[in-house]
Amino acid sequence: MIYFDSDYMEGAHPEVMRRLMETNLEHTVGYGEDPHSANARQLIRQACQAPNALVQFLVGGTQTNATVIDALLLRHQGVLAAETGHINVHESGAIEHSGHKVLTLPSHGGKVDADEVEKYITSFYSDDTYHHMVAPGMLYITQPTELGSIYSLAELEALSGICHRHNIPLYLDGARLGYGLAAQGADYTLADIARLCDVFYIGGTKVGALFGEAVVAPNPERLPYFFELVKQHGALLAKGRLQGVQFETLFTDGLYQKIAHHAVEQAMRIRQAFVARGIRVAFPSPTNQQFFVLPNELMDRLRKEVSFENWGPRGESETTVRFVTSWATTAADVDRLVELINS
Amino acid sequence: MIYFDSDYMEGAHPEVMRRLMETNLEHTVGYGEDPHSANARQLIRQACQAPNALVQFLVGGTQTNATVIDALLLRHQGVLAAETGHINVHESGAIEHSGHKVLTLPSHGGKVDADEVEKYITSFYSDDTYHHMVAPGMLYITQPTELGSIYSLAELEALSGICHRHNIPLYLDGARLGYGLAAQGADYTLADIARLCDVFYIGGTKVGALFGEAVVAPNPERLPYFFELVKQHGALLAKGRLQGVQFETLFTDGLYQKIAHHAVEQAMRIRQAFVARGIRVAFPSPTNQQFFVLPNELMDRLRKEVSFENWGPRGESETTVRFVTSWATTAADVDRLVELINS
Amino acid sequence: MIYFDSDYMEGAHPEVMRRLMETNLEHTVGYGEDPHSANARQLIRQACQAPNALVQFLVGGTQTNATVIDALLLRHQGVLAAETGHINVHESGAIEHSGHKVLTLPSHGGKVDADEVEKYITSFYSDDTYHHMVAPGMLYITQPTELGSIYSLAELEALSGICHRHNIPLYLDGARLGYGLAAQGADYTLADIARLCDVFYIGGTKVGALFGEAVVAPNPERLPYFFELVKQHGALLAKGRLQGVQFETLFTDGLYQKIAHHAVEQAMRIRQAFVARGIRVAFPSPTNQQFFVLPNELMDRLRKEVSFENWGPRGESETTVRFVTSWATTAADVDRLVELINS
Amino acid sequence: MIYFDSDYMEGAHPEVMRRLMETNLEHTVGYGEDPHSANARQLIRQACQAPNALVQFLVGGTQTNATVIDALLLRHQGVLAAETGHINVHESGAIEHSGHKVLTLPSHGGKVDADEVEKYITSFYSDDTYHHMVAPGMLYITQPTELGSIYSLAELEALSGICHRHNIPLYLDGARLGYGLAAQGADYTLADIARLCDVFYIGGTKVGALFGEAVVAPNPERLPYFFELVKQHGALLAKGRLQGVQFETLFTDGLYQKIAHHAVEQAMRIRQAFVARGIRVAFPSPTNQQFFVLPNELMDRLRKEVSFENWGPRGESETTVRFVTSWATTAADVDRLVELINS
Repeated sequence: MIYFDSDYMEGAHPEVMRRLMETNLEHTVGYGEDPHSANARQLIRQACQAPNALVQFLVGGTQTNATVIDALLLRHQGVLAAETGHINVHESGAIEHSGHKVLTLPSHGGKVDADEVEKYITSFYSDDTYHHMVAPGMLYITQPTELGSIYSLAELEALSGICHRHNIPLYLDGARLGYGLAAQGADYTLADIARLCDVFYIGGTKVGALFGEAVVAPNPERLPYFFELVKQHGALLAKGRLQGVQFETLFTDGLYQKIAHHAVEQAMRIRQAFVARGIRVAFPSPTNQQFFVLPNELMDRLRKEVSFENWGPRGESETTVRFVTSWATTAADVDRLVELINS
Repeated sequence: MIYFDSDYMEGAHPEVMRRLMETNLEHTVGYGEDPHSANARQLIRQACQAPNALVQFLVGGTQTNATVIDALLLRHQGVLAAETGHINVHESGAIEHSGHKVLTLPSHGGKVDADEVEKYITSFYSDDTYHHMVAPGMLYITQPTELGSIYSLAELEALSGICHRHNIPLYLDGARLGYGLAAQGADYTLADIARLCDVFYIGGTKVGALFGEAVVAPNPERLPYFFELVKQHGALLAKGRLQGVQFETLFTDGLYQKIAHHAVEQAMRIRQAFVARGIRVAFPSPTNQQFFVLPNELMDRLRKEVSFENWGPRGESETTVRFVTSWATTAADVDRLVELINS
Repeated sequence: MIYFDSDYMEGAHPEVMRRLMETNLEHTVGYGEDPHSANARQLIRQACQAPNALVQFLVGGTQTNATVIDALLLRHQGVLAAETGHINVHESGAIEHSGHKVLTLPSHGGKVDADEVEKYITSFYSDDTYHHMVAPGMLYITQPTELGSIYSLAELEALSGICHRHNIPLYLDGARLGYGLAAQGADYTLADIARLCDVFYIGGTKVGALFGEAVVAPNPERLPYFFELVKQHGALLAKGRLQGVQFETLFTDGLYQKIAHHAVEQAMRIRQAFVARGIRVAFPSPTNQQFFVLPNELMDRLRKEVSFENWGPRGESETTVRFVTSWATTAADVDRLVELINS
Repeated sequence: MIYFDSDYMEGAHPEVMRRLMETNLEHTVGYGEDPHSANARQLIRQACQAPNALVQFLVGGTQTNATVIDALLLRHQGVLAAETGHINVHESGAIEHSGHKVLTLPSHGGKVDADEVEKYITSFYSDDTYHHMVAPGMLYITQPTELGSIYSLAELEALSGICHRHNIPLYLDGARLGYGLAAQGADYTLADIARLCDVFYIGGTKVGALFGEAVVAPNPERLPYFFELVKQHGALLAKGRLQGVQFETLFTDGLYQKIAHHAVEQAMRIRQAFVARGIRVAFPSPTNQQFFVLPNELMDRLRKEVSFENWGPRGESETTVRFVTSWATTAADVDRLVELINS
């Protein structure tokens, strides 16, 4: 069997594991005050060209979103997000658990539209009754989105401009940020992200780590008392060094980038094979998640040897499916998949 | 330098690391639905003699307490706890963040007194205004306590009896449960804990794992929709297998017990050495945390070679200190410490 | 000036005021334990043909919705509502403040569609990832809706049937329930509401009282510990007798019905006058709120003598407006308005 | 029967009722935007000598405390209060419902001690682990306290000084503030309260109004977006004019003061009668609540004709009781009580 179900089916990239083994017996203080965490924070600041950034490690994506959003919003405010946004769909109400409403915008292939964001905000304040309504207090975007798509630099600049004109922070959920940076046609860098966003996180769980997400606030004043909030949200790891060692490894010798480029490369090979065979793309994606509309017959045939996600029927004879690659996807796996597609 | 600061200064027990390496490339589904997690749940059920128990893995202690307490309480209820209880002191308000009041009881060396629990509950309901007050909805205890002490079987039975007579659940925070089971004079087993508590957790973070806590509800009906709540609290790990593999290892061939016994044994050697030298015990503890009142002169001398926690001055010439052992404490470390104490 | 802005511009119906004056010096216990509250509860049970109903008085609508929804939902659940529903738009995030997500359905003139409710629920449980999503835990409807429309008996029966087949409660926000019962063509009674809904409230604030809403749960087991929750939500009035006296008065000699019938009758006169003049109805309403699309010229002319709400431009030369009647609307006010419309 | 149970057993002071009747048919906009509310705000600003103060009306005490505390605290902070404080005992967890911990201080006859406040704060920040603990973010006091006692001007100045040195706001719960101002020996004015507190509220419910509490923030920047929070907490009254008219009346011609002075005067007569008879005072109080230790025989005799609160047995033959006066207490009522005491 070969596996394309998701990018969190295995442990960690071997180099990450090697470093965890190597440092296992070191004695360090807890809660991220150790030298590995300090070093990892420094490496991330450099990669982001954000020398003063607050960098705080959390464990997983949902808790990161819940904690950051809780930190950024005033109590009467909600968070603007695409209706397909992870926080609106797949976080079991974690945002509302902290008391905040998700204010939804139409999803355009997973993305929000800058004009619609602007219009939401201006309409809000032109409504006489707005003091009785939940104010748009920040904008949440995912990069890449849940559907694999990416915002271009121009789109990010437009969103950032709108947010800052209206004095609300822009927060970017980078659970798969590596793949967004390695995406075909990506015209922005990590430094651009840091320049345009008030807060974002660099996902580790889905990009080579066992677990761990690095929250970055280029201007630390955006996240006052964040350590306390992380603790209050149950998101503070006792052995913070584990995230330190992992991110230290990922941000040494460009490992994070290598992992992402490898995965995107394999994803592109998969796409090419399907498209060459005449299969339709369900949602266009330049990243490590690929979505196709498969004839059921082909799907059934592939299933015998290949594992991937079924996203539900499309009419009577087709099905939307997802193929995902990661550091753990080998070229040989993709070779075999291509062979099966073409056979 | 030798280290006795805490039981979470290193990575994981080598056997745990070995298994994480060994399984690193396996492909498994996420969120604890993998075979390792299933096996670990089964091993824990056996160890607890609780064949139907719900076993759910979380990442750390604060999030575990917040999630379990949120699951057990009705909205108008609070949680009874010793005023020294971890949830009342060192969780940054995580319990209140979910809307629940901590109702404090006097601490007796870290423990609550059964009579005082009973009296709290009966006094509450004999107050005419109790509908305006936060009802005692559950009892939280730690075993061992924050001060290293343990409840005896008779004490646990008394608390369990009171809770069940008053129809409120008993929840045991077992962040260091292993050391409580291996404690000198412990007259209860894991099966006793499972018989007497409605919910408890078996701590991994401080007893040999990289991280991870196993929540056990012998009667699963006590924790309905717990998976959803774990997700909502941001406590669900994408790669749930990591906890599965770790607890599978800890509950194979008695590793969890061996780790705890080793640590307690070394702790007893430390205590013996100090006491023989005439040093007073600050809080009596039969577990892996030891508290002493050190003359400042001795403290300063030890500090040159030994790392341990300073718990604050006791008068002008003495200081309360904590020494903690774990799997990572070697007999040689303790040999050297004893030598220094006696020199 | 004559006023049609809203149904809460004046104090209370004179008979309500008379009784408040008459009882002002009586000595009674607080928090709704007084004889007037007991009598009012009994009168409401009779009017609802729900002899065992829990009846609890609260002060205002938003707090009532927040408290009831908090009482009915489990923590992992959200509340289904039309996207135009008051809880989704005009309650400043009160529902989310208590930790609950509002799950929106399309609005059909303010109403939800039974088939869409059913489809939401069945789609939810057929999604493999539903344990990561907020479960539909209850249905919220308004009767009449924010746009003045009403559900027919058949529609209420369909919604009630769906809710009960899926084992979730149906909650009806009756801020203007009186007008819904007095509506032209209303084919249901208060007893029908009580038979079909798990919880509902009978609005006082907008139907003749100074303030006050009566929550009714025909089966009291649906709202355990509701008194405690009301207190916790800050919704318990010290002088509960004030609500007791007011609802006692409203439910004596059919005053509540008389107030509503009067208001609806005047509203129908207004509609007739506009329609006869060729003015379009913006949203069809058989209740005390009437919505029209006024030519701006007519609007400007009326404004000189008449006060009403501007709901925003409709194209370049028209405006949507709202006219509302109440016990305080006199036939003479409407006579004059009709005269102005026709002049 | 004559009644001394509490100060919220009747409706409102007749002058308040007269004005509510008089204004009943006026047409005004809702939510406190009406002229009566504007005038009441102005009168309160004058009485407080706080010309720029934010003044916002809420309905009851628990909701006022919950809303103000939610507005003043950052998320990682808790509220310091005497363990007997209303927010810690009799608000059904309303403070925790909004996510905030009550940090308790010893009660000295209902009051906190300035030195203990200071010590709490300095000890907190000298604890190495304070980032894992709930930070003291504000101080809550009641004036008069739940036991009828009052802080002197010097005590208020000391508390205010400590709060401001440590940069946390001082909030005064004035549910019975009138009686505190009218108290025997009170050496402070409303202007002093406004000068020393960051936020306080002037209670109406227990001092002559049907209901209503006026929150005052002399510097409005202390309560940003407070209107939105009031709405979110379900504390915004649709017919805000009701509070406007009531506070307008109470703050015209010194009615608020007259009501309080009358009640305190009658309370002093009661105290004098009991003390002259040799009865012990349970808690010394210069305000409208009086606490005595009554021999059970006397208690039983009084009970036949007098209603008052039983605060529980004191040994075998005595009982602690509470007598409360208000605007509704007549001199004749007290004459008769005194007669009974002396007979």
